[in-house]
Amino acid sequence: MANRRLDRQVEFLLECDKLKHVTRQSLLLNGERQENSAEHSWHLALMAVLLAEHAKEAGVDLLRVIKIALVHDLVEIDAGDTYIYDEEGARDKAAREQAAADRLFALLPPDQGAQLRALWDEYEAGQTAEARFTGALDRLQPLLLNFHTQGAQWRKHGVTVDQVLARNRGMEAGAPTLWAYAERLIRDAVARGYLPQKPTDTQA
Amino acid sequence: MANRRLDRQVEFLLECDKLKHVTRQSLLLNGERQENSAEHSWHLALMAVLLAEHAKEAGVDLLRVIKIALVHDLVEIDAGDTYIYDEEGARDKAAREQAAADRLFALLPPDQGAQLRALWDEYEAGQTAEARFTGALDRLQPLLLNFHTQGAQWRKHGVTVDQVLARNRGMEAGAPTLWAYAERLIRDAVARGYLPQKPTDTQA
Repeated sequence: MANRRLDRQVEFLLECDKLKHVTRQSLLLNGERQENSAEHSWHLALMAVLLAEHAKEAGVDLLRVIKIALVHDLVEIDAGDTYIYDEEGARDKAAREQAAADRLFALLPPDQGAQLRALWDEYEAGQTAEARFTGALDRLQPLLLNFHTQGAQWRKHGVTVDQVLARNRGMEAGAPTLWAYAERLIRDAVARGYLPQKPTDTQA
Repeated sequence: MANRRLDRQVEFLLECDKLKHVTRQSLLLNGERQENSAEHSWHLALMAVLLAEHAKEAGVDLLRVIKIALVHDLVEIDAGDTYIYDEEGARDKAAREQAAADRLFALLPPDQGAQLRALWDEYEAGQTAEARFTGALDRLQPLLLNFHTQGAQWRKHGVTVDQVLARNRGMEAGAPTLWAYAERLIRDAVARGYLPQKPTDTQA
């Protein structure tokens, strides 16, 4: 009995290995390759540990924030990563990700499947302090990688400062201090020529 | 003032990006490449969430287990990953990792540097239920990857079943159920020819 439960847990954990081959747009800081969603999720969870004091609401539940960070991208195993500035991909993103959540979390014992599904739903809904804080980290992390690789991916995809401001302003609801930091970073990126003011021809 | 603190936190988090290029011996389950230590750390943290009920001691502090999982390999940024069956590398591993911990955690604001250092020291000492449980996960995870890639890395390095049993038996102290599972996996690996009984010529 116990073993059937453990078998299902292991089966799910093996399936999760696939997140290590979901490629994101962000470059690693050494510029050598694009980040994958598993290492991104690790980076977010570590950010949560260190930056929790910057959450908008005091007393944010750090354990729940970290759990959300660990599972927030699992649906990409089926649905792939949708670039934040990809308006085409954004159209059916929700449907693709819901189907992925249905399949993936059903691999687990029902109580744990429901727990992880609830964490993911909470993140998507963005109605709790924990979801909003994790969302702020999820925006800050690629901003940091983009800035410190001289905006290579912004320039490649012809992303403009207005798009970056629009897509990331939501950070303020989860972590105003981090948004203030990010806003300075974005302005600095423009000043340094990492991020165009106006649309340019994309190299993509 | 607040910003100097945030600057140090960010500086540390940027430095941590380097864990994404520390290569481990385990192959990903699709066999395409070796795992890196950042995605391994993510996998461990996710395992902690799902397998906490198998910890030897009831009431293990899951938040501390996850924090340990997130930081336990950071020293590899300087010290590299030492293969568990590499006796040569094991000799100066402790000294290399202590020096790495001294440098890395000093990047953080002192209170947070001390917090992460304490988590890492706790893991290395293995004297708490949380350290022992994380240690058990840290052994189970590569066993799973090795088994489900037909023992490719065991065979490549000429690792024998006696070595695998000796190096992993410590799991029992942190998670007896997981050790029982692992032991069956190891016996099964031998039966399937994934893991030699006797030393073979290595291909490495």
